[in-house]
Amino acid sequence: MTNSFSTLLETLQEIATLGSVDSLVNWDEQVMLKPAGIEFRAKQSALLARMVHERLTSPRLGEVLAAAEAELSTEDPASDSRIVIREFRRDYDRAVRLPSSLIAQIAHTTSLAQSAWVEARKNNHFATFAPWLGKVLDLKRQEASCLRTSTGTLYDALLEGYEPGETVASLNQIFSELKPRLVALIQRIAGCDRQAPIHLLHQHYPSNLQEQLTRDVAGLIGFDQQAGRIDVSVHPFCTGIAPGDTRITTRYDEHFFNDAFFGTLHETGHALYEQQLPKHTHFGTALAEPAGLGIHESQSRLWENFIGRSRAFWSFFYPKIQTMFAPQLKDTSFDDWLFSINQVRPSFIRTEADEATYNLHILLRFELEQQLINGDLSVQDLPIAWNERFKAYLGLTVPDDTQGCLQDVHWSAGLMGYFPTYSLGNMYAAQFFNAAKQAIPDLDRQICQGQFKPLLEWLGVNIHVHGRRFTGRQLVRRVTGKELSPDDLLNYLENKAQEYYGV
Amino acid sequence: MTNSFSTLLETLQEIATLGSVDSLVNWDEQVMLKPAGIEFRAKQSALLARMVHERLTSPRLGEVLAAAEAELSTEDPASDSRIVIREFRRDYDRAVRLPSSLIAQIAHTTSLAQSAWVEARKNNHFATFAPWLGKVLDLKRQEASCLRTSTGTLYDALLEGYEPGETVASLNQIFSELKPRLVALIQRIAGCDRQAPIHLLHQHYPSNLQEQLTRDVAGLIGFDQQAGRIDVSVHPFCTGIAPGDTRITTRYDEHFFNDAFFGTLHETGHALYEQQLPKHTHFGTALAEPAGLGIHESQSRLWENFIGRSRAFWSFFYPKIQTMFAPQLKDTSFDDWLFSINQVRPSFIRTEADEATYNLHILLRFELEQQLINGDLSVQDLPIAWNERFKAYLGLTVPDDTQGCLQDVHWSAGLMGYFPTYSLGNMYAAQFFNAAKQAIPDLDRQICQGQFKPLLEWLGVNIHVHGRRFTGRQLVRRVTGKELSPDDLLNYLENKAQEYYGV
Repeated sequence: MTNSFSTLLETLQEIATLGSVDSLVNWDEQVMLKPAGIEFRAKQSALLARMVHERLTSPRLGEVLAAAEAELSTEDPASDSRIVIREFRRDYDRAVRLPSSLIAQIAHTTSLAQSAWVEARKNNHFATFAPWLGKVLDLKRQEASCLRTSTGTLYDALLEGYEPGETVASLNQIFSELKPRLVALIQRIAGCDRQAPIHLLHQHYPSNLQEQLTRDVAGLIGFDQQAGRIDVSVHPFCTGIAPGDTRITTRYDEHFFNDAFFGTLHETGHALYEQQLPKHTHFGTALAEPAGLGIHESQSRLWENFIGRSRAFWSFFYPKIQTMFAPQLKDTSFDDWLFSINQVRPSFIRTEADEATYNLHILLRFELEQQLINGDLSVQDLPIAWNERFKAYLGLTVPDDTQGCLQDVHWSAGLMGYFPTYSLGNMYAAQFFNAAKQAIPDLDRQICQGQFKPLLEWLGVNIHVHGRRFTGRQLVRRVTGKELSPDDLLNYLENKAQEYYGV
Repeated sequence: MTNSFSTLLETLQEIATLGSVDSLVNWDEQVMLKPAGIEFRAKQSALLARMVHERLTSPRLGEVLAAAEAELSTEDPASDSRIVIREFRRDYDRAVRLPSSLIAQIAHTTSLAQSAWVEARKNNHFATFAPWLGKVLDLKRQEASCLRTSTGTLYDALLEGYEPGETVASLNQIFSELKPRLVALIQRIAGCDRQAPIHLLHQHYPSNLQEQLTRDVAGLIGFDQQAGRIDVSVHPFCTGIAPGDTRITTRYDEHFFNDAFFGTLHETGHALYEQQLPKHTHFGTALAEPAGLGIHESQSRLWENFIGRSRAFWSFFYPKIQTMFAPQLKDTSFDDWLFSINQVRPSFIRTEADEATYNLHILLRFELEQQLINGDLSVQDLPIAWNERFKAYLGLTVPDDTQGCLQDVHWSAGLMGYFPTYSLGNMYAAQFFNAAKQAIPDLDRQICQGQFKPLLEWLGVNIHVHGRRFTGRQLVRRVTGKELSPDDLLNYLENKAQEYYGV
């Protein structure tokens, strides 16, 4: 290993170690910390974030990076070292463009904006949040101005932080193919007579049994509980804290089966990616990091939906929950259960949406947040624009802003550009799952028998092991031989609509 | 506030914030972390420890300290600022004397020595641990050589780290008063016929009820559960992580009442000190830190023993546990219960010893570790020396090293000089408790009624609020009007011996 490159690696590992401590501190805040500790916790997080940023942007590190680039310039560009350097150059150039003062201002303002959002949402009072959204947008525009390239838009600059390689133009092309078929599909379903028996999901499911169930199912699909934890938090999440330490959270609603069960499958999907990233070998470098949020989301959606709502999975799993929840399910047929968890129906809240309508929730946000960033839509016109578009895409009249444009935390937290990665995840998941079915001819039979190891290994070898070596688009091309496309997702959704709704 | 002093404060707060993160990381390791995460956790801890030490010993900080000393030289030496400076001068001078290389070596060697100790203790094989103890002693002698003052011994230098102001000479004087009366007392008890009905404690006490009980009793005596947590760990401990975040742990043995109950009272005693230290006002400075380990231990012992084994406490609490554990205790008299938890009987394991014999376990270790550090006792002769002394003080023949000199983690962890603080804690507790009884005339009646707020407030106002402003000796003088002395402890133990054993 060359001198500068090994110095670079050492520094990156130290920065990542500090980052891993920050992740732990944030996990603890959401899972363990009691109210009186919250105020000081903000200081701990701020200090760690500042130390990470200082190290990441130090001129000395820039010199080391440049020296390592020179040293390794004749090596194979596809070698691990060159990939590490290429990706860190990308991170470094973005990081140094952001003044610390702006980062601090964004942290401060979004913290206050989130409080205002909580208040506004609770009271269904958009005006409480509007001025804060204006401030956040202003700061995010400043951030985007610092980050934007000569050819890209402001929104592109934000998007790049979540989804390397994507642009508004590239996403618009994909989404313009997705939208019309999806809108049409959902209209067909909305117009048909069949109703899923969702009362089955709203029976009383005791928390302690649900907890046992979520542990069982996470373990079944491969979550290594010697290298991670499952806990409870208000908002479920997954965090890959460090090598050997990946944690997920869930929450239990005794009167709704889906929350904990599908939430846990979702977070376990993220966790399996984190647990199979080559963190022991490549810690601190892009080779141990996820390819992007879209690919990360593809892993959660694959397990939550493509496995977790499949006939094959439940042919193995339904007898188990029928025994576990005998009073609730002993007289319920397999087909009724399957239909209940595969309902498609327009609803107001994104996080409660089914796998089909979910993507329209995303399209709407993607379109609106572009307009907000570009200045084509003023903050005060947001509720009207939201409601009009909601009616057009999902056919529903939004009753109030709490069930409309106030429902998500993202904009108050400054996460503009994040939403589209959710739908990218769904499209990637559909393509990966089809590729897996081709690569593992008896996958369906394996799933029917509760065997997930071959699939998990296939995901590991084809996706997880690469870290951030490839962009999402490169990865899907490599794994499936096809370009990113909404076709697999749409075919999957249309087939299921045919199966469950006969449309 | 002067310029240099405010810079000093800012720096101290940053160092303490980093230290608080380290405390959280350590708590998590002992309470939450799964096996696969342990290896990387060592790197996180080492990085944080190194960053704290680098900051603490930076020449720039030394300059700021010197400038602040000059600026404030005309202020009242008892003012907060002067105390902060005085105590940080003490910390700084100690810290800069230790080379980073030695600190790293000690961390590395004690980590390996602890593994060897675990192995040796499991296999009752002192020879496995002996070479490691030799290495640790050698490093601790080097540490002591760096730290020792012109007048102090090597052991003094180590002791000063745990108990500011104490020396071998000062401790020997106190312990020489304590030892003969205590040995005589225990011989009298050992020679008498009465036997405590300890089978009562070894019934089946279900974990879930014990858990409820420990939460109840911690809350009853004042632990603020909005500003802290109670969890489970292999070795119970208390950690005052940050302002508003104090955590204790306990463990549940379904076949022994004392472990969780008195363990929780003990850790809650530590926690009440941490929760009442003025951390919001003085965070980062000695005014927000405990006076020393002896005073810290006095707070745990006061609640565990002076309250927790008292007739008054149980006259309030016994009816509660008699209801809670009706199958176990419905036919047990109050007096039998009291006697069972007040048994005094020589035993081999320090952590299981009663409040009287405990101090002889400490004296033995204090004497032996001095000899080990001074080179008057060779590592290979330790088992024989231990066993001889044990026979002389406690009248028992040690059956094997696992129940003898291999029982404690301290020496493998390099904690030489720590043991005497436990007995100091017992003596301080006895003196403080007598002072509290004088200051609160109806304290006994309050305790009988389950009212602990006045006592907790008294401890806060007289002890906790001062942080490290005073040494233990100064504090006891200030609070009780008397010098540190074993008399109160001995009188207390002798009175109880009379009450329970009639000797």
